[in-house]
Amino acid sequence: MTVRVGVIGAGMIGQDHIRRLTEVVTAATVTAVTDLDTARAAEVAATVDAAVLPSGAELINSPDVDAVLVTSWGPTHAEHVLNAIAAGKPVFCEKPLATTAEDCLRIVEAERAHGSRLVQVGFMRRFDPGYRQMKEVLAAGFLGAPLMVHCAHRNPTVPDAYHSAMAAQDTAVHEIDVLRWLLDDEIVSAQVVTPRATSKRFEHLKDPQIMIFETVSGVRIDLEVFVNCRYGYDIQCEVVGEDGLVRLPDPAAVGIRTATRHATAVTQDWKVRFAEAFDTEFREWITSVAAGAEPTGPSAWDGYAATVITDAAVRSLETDGTVVSADMKPRPAFYGGAA
Amino acid sequence: MTVRVGVIGAGMIGQDHIRRLTEVVTAATVTAVTDLDTARAAEVAATVDAAVLPSGAELINSPDVDAVLVTSWGPTHAEHVLNAIAAGKPVFCEKPLATTAEDCLRIVEAERAHGSRLVQVGFMRRFDPGYRQMKEVLAAGFLGAPLMVHCAHRNPTVPDAYHSAMAAQDTAVHEIDVLRWLLDDEIVSAQVVTPRATSKRFEHLKDPQIMIFETVSGVRIDLEVFVNCRYGYDIQCEVVGEDGLVRLPDPAAVGIRTATRHATAVTQDWKVRFAEAFDTEFREWITSVAAGAEPTGPSAWDGYAATVITDAAVRSLETDGTVVSADMKPRPAFYGGAA
Amino acid sequence: MTVRVGVIGAGMIGQDHIRRLTEVVTAATVTAVTDLDTARAAEVAATVDAAVLPSGAELINSPDVDAVLVTSWGPTHAEHVLNAIAAGKPVFCEKPLATTAEDCLRIVEAERAHGSRLVQVGFMRRFDPGYRQMKEVLAAGFLGAPLMVHCAHRNPTVPDAYHSAMAAQDTAVHEIDVLRWLLDDEIVSAQVVTPRATSKRFEHLKDPQIMIFETVSGVRIDLEVFVNCRYGYDIQCEVVGEDGLVRLPDPAAVGIRTATRHATAVTQDWKVRFAEAFDTEFREWITSVAAGAEPTGPSAWDGYAATVITDAAVRSLETDGTVVSADMKPRPAFYGGAA
Amino acid sequence: MTVRVGVIGAGMIGQDHIRRLTEVVTAATVTAVTDLDTARAAEVAATVDAAVLPSGAELINSPDVDAVLVTSWGPTHAEHVLNAIAAGKPVFCEKPLATTAEDCLRIVEAERAHGSRLVQVGFMRRFDPGYRQMKEVLAAGFLGAPLMVHCAHRNPTVPDAYHSAMAAQDTAVHEIDVLRWLLDDEIVSAQVVTPRATSKRFEHLKDPQIMIFETVSGVRIDLEVFVNCRYGYDIQCEVVGEDGLVRLPDPAAVGIRTATRHATAVTQDWKVRFAEAFDTEFREWITSVAAGAEPTGPSAWDGYAATVITDAAVRSLETDGTVVSADMKPRPAFYGGAA
Repeated sequence: MTVRVGVIGAGMIGQDHIRRLTEVVTAATVTAVTDLDTARAAEVAATVDAAVLPSGAELINSPDVDAVLVTSWGPTHAEHVLNAIAAGKPVFCEKPLATTAEDCLRIVEAERAHGSRLVQVGFMRRFDPGYRQMKEVLAAGFLGAPLMVHCAHRNPTVPDAYHSAMAAQDTAVHEIDVLRWLLDDEIVSAQVVTPRATSKRFEHLKDPQIMIFETVSGVRIDLEVFVNCRYGYDIQCEVVGEDGLVRLPDPAAVGIRTATRHATAVTQDWKVRFAEAFDTEFREWITSVAAGAEPTGPSAWDGYAATVITDAAVRSLETDGTVVSADMKPRPAFYGGAA
Repeated sequence: MTVRVGVIGAGMIGQDHIRRLTEVVTAATVTAVTDLDTARAAEVAATVDAAVLPSGAELINSPDVDAVLVTSWGPTHAEHVLNAIAAGKPVFCEKPLATTAEDCLRIVEAERAHGSRLVQVGFMRRFDPGYRQMKEVLAAGFLGAPLMVHCAHRNPTVPDAYHSAMAAQDTAVHEIDVLRWLLDDEIVSAQVVTPRATSKRFEHLKDPQIMIFETVSGVRIDLEVFVNCRYGYDIQCEVVGEDGLVRLPDPAAVGIRTATRHATAVTQDWKVRFAEAFDTEFREWITSVAAGAEPTGPSAWDGYAATVITDAAVRSLETDGTVVSADMKPRPAFYGGAA
Repeated sequence: MTVRVGVIGAGMIGQDHIRRLTEVVTAATVTAVTDLDTARAAEVAATVDAAVLPSGAELINSPDVDAVLVTSWGPTHAEHVLNAIAAGKPVFCEKPLATTAEDCLRIVEAERAHGSRLVQVGFMRRFDPGYRQMKEVLAAGFLGAPLMVHCAHRNPTVPDAYHSAMAAQDTAVHEIDVLRWLLDDEIVSAQVVTPRATSKRFEHLKDPQIMIFETVSGVRIDLEVFVNCRYGYDIQCEVVGEDGLVRLPDPAAVGIRTATRHATAVTQDWKVRFAEAFDTEFREWITSVAAGAEPTGPSAWDGYAATVITDAAVRSLETDGTVVSADMKPRPAFYGGAA
Repeated sequence: MTVRVGVIGAGMIGQDHIRRLTEVVTAATVTAVTDLDTARAAEVAATVDAAVLPSGAELINSPDVDAVLVTSWGPTHAEHVLNAIAAGKPVFCEKPLATTAEDCLRIVEAERAHGSRLVQVGFMRRFDPGYRQMKEVLAAGFLGAPLMVHCAHRNPTVPDAYHSAMAAQDTAVHEIDVLRWLLDDEIVSAQVVTPRATSKRFEHLKDPQIMIFETVSGVRIDLEVFVNCRYGYDIQCEVVGEDGLVRLPDPAAVGIRTATRHATAVTQDWKVRFAEAFDTEFREWITSVAAGAEPTGPSAWDGYAATVITDAAVRSLETDGTVVSADMKPRPAFYGGAA
């Protein structure tokens, strides 16, 4: 069975996912596209021979759409996801699930009322082979209980529009999700402190930032977010347990010896670094949809948790580094697991 | 456009490629299957809703088959490939193209008579990201002219049926192809010597073997083939040029520190090691077929060259390590390039 | 000229340094030994044909002693160092210089009154080749201004007598010294937080601890101190600057591939890890003494600074992680430099 | 006891060893120096307050000389070593022990007639920590029987005076010695082949060369000698056994991430690469001399074997790569061991 996907939002990310659904994922086809910018919607739809629909609501309810992909502007996510739930259709929503914790909760409630999981949120790192290997190692148990996690999330540079709160909302949010999953543990507080700022940034931006998260079990996570590190897109993650540690590998790259040095290239682009993760993410989502099964990726609850924790981080940044609790509702049994 | 592929040979490799064409490559569908073992053909065809046809010839000529995949027993390859050329259909033939140089030449001649390239041979390493990075580095020129290549091809173990000549025919043949492409140079001689044999092998097998190849430019390649190395499937390749060297990376794997050691797992299985290469190989083949273009992968000429060089290696092994010329016909302009 | 060294304290460290002065450093000889345990002093002295003297004071004033090595119990350091200064003799004092900041200051004042540097404190990491390479790279300037430092100091295990404050006093003090020197920057505050504790420790001990230091320039240092990590003695240090980073290497160790893994051994013992640093430390000290020059290693001021910062860390630990200022006197011009 | 060393030959190597005996090795002192260039001898002797003697013979027989270091021109080695044996004094002879196998044998015979080992030959790699780790791993046995060794010996560049035979005599001779010791096996044949030559060399020189050695046990060693590799001084060694392999580590070096790359520096100088090996070599030699014990380093027999094998390699080079037997006398029980 081929899953017919309708796409809300035809911007850069939307186009990349349309390409993925078309060229990488075999059991999917894009049948409908909508965008506030109608011309852009038409242009993108034409490349895959899809219909252009005037609104998210019409797209969601189209008989030619089996599943919905939301890649529109963040503040519109909640409405589209709620509409998809109302229509009883599987919906993949790019991060964030919603821009407020309240809206995330409304989605959670709607989904619970529906009675089965329909929502998957677009946190792709859970599908990265390196993180998956880490999860296997941790699950095997020979490293003992996790105690600490050291992470770095570095981008070579960011555009002018990137502001200080985005370090949590857009950047650290990936570690927030993947670490909750990796540790199978919930984050209960966030703190953001600012070391000496780099001079290689736009004036308004606090960069780097160091974020500290604590979990229910007392695991302490520190995360360096440095979005103008200049040398590359570099993701580091090390989990230290009672009996040993496990470390995320750097991407495989040829070693070159020349001119007095041994060197390997550092990836420059997150789309390249996580290309395989994105492909697997969509492949597994389509597989679950085609099977009529619940999605196995990040849930609406994970989207809610990420938003609550991100909010706490932003509040900490705005209050000069106070430790801010992540005040989350109790996790409904509906969503299973610990985190 | 979806390419309708007919598959000749429904054994293990055939089944894996059918899965790939179905689940990984988007623009393909498997419409017909044939196998000497009719029951097996039926079973495999059923999984993808394909027709079962009584013979390769009928499959090749079926109006529901746009392109042919040959994964049957080696000695039958030539006949199927020649039939496909006669039918003017693109054909992907697993290695070897044919079991004799003469049969390879007949294919080359038939393809030239047809007037455009129809044949791609299944050497997947050209599609591996590590080798592709090496090729880019060499092409960039800053390492100067290549002088030497050091390689190792190690398998943890092989079954009883694996005999000494297969070290060249089945194992080293991958390096033979990928190094001709990497260096853009032709191999002119082969020599196979046998160091002290491992005791961890079936008695009849000479293992390890060291193969030495020389190219037109004088580049000297040494290749350790060790198919009972026990610790893993390990592929090493280092090209040394006048101004530096480039080395194939090991696959990315999490680092683990525990019990006095820092360790990373070594891949155990060639299907895992080259999974991405296989996927890319078929994706690019289908793309070329869908576009009505000539294939960009290894050509019939490459298949012929690999067979001639493999034959030379086997003769060297049988004559206690004499240097044996690879007596190749002059390369027709039809096939372009140097190697 | 051979420097005649008198050694105060003949315990394990003292014996190791006596061996070093005798077997590794060429221009030194040990001529006198003293220890509260007279029998031990006699036994150790006999191995190198040195005199046994009844007290530190007599040893310091012996005409057969050109330079003094203090490796006695920490609380006695100050007295011996002050006596050596009073005698105008070069003195190498194992860490700590003194157990209180006040005593350190008395030494600083005495040395200033003397008019030239006589004191070197035993922080050996400044002599480790890896840290020296890092210092060269930072000094070369192409990484830009340092912004953050990430460190780990892990021991496989510690004895029962090791208590929570020793994580700062005995363990982190090495990073405190080497980072002040590496960054050429002063530490102005300390904070110690405690993640989930390992179960593999004596009950009374808080382990691991995370220490955060901030410098005058705003560089933020985080240091994981984990003294029951079980897998090895592992020292990590990464300095992140505006244009790139530099990372301390792991010790060179043979790579082994066997039984599905690539592995390298992790050092288990700090004496092995820093053997070369210790040798160089004493070689350079003896060279300066033999030349009648001021020592080039860590000064009395560095000893004072380390004690003030260590005290701040201990206070933070005792007050549940508050940020504690390191209230240091202004650095006298006598001691040059920034840190 | 301090060993009083007399040094024959005050050139660059001699001066470096005099520095080492003076500044690095504690139990030694240089008491006499001789050199054909009397002015140079005087100049060097003055730096360490040693006597200048008119000839090797007089130096060897001086009552102020306990042990002899021969670092003069190769063709003079045999005479000095034989004189030292005649005088019953320990002698450390820089490689080669002698320039002909016949002269080496005369030394072996003289030493046997003397009745105990007096001679150590200056092959320093046996003292390198990396090779020593490899030896321990091989001795531990879990890699099984060694089957193959892959080596590279690369120098950034060589002067005009370096000619093709020196690739064996001066360069590969280090691997010849260290591999005999590492494998505890004797080399029985040598072959030298020449790949495409680098254009970055003096015209008269064949560079690179590949040398193949076979041992009694059938282990096959291949060694790339490339003395104009331009990027650095790079020593590689990998021993492949039945159950796994062990690889010599690269020297520890800081990792630097900047400008899109992760890089580590490659050592440029053999004196730096093997500095620790040289120090340990002389320290252990002086320890054995001071104890009146036989030296534990490479013996006269090892010097003989290296010369025989080197000769075989040169003959192979001169005869276009024929396999040449290393015709060695039977190893006398006097020298123990297998290789």
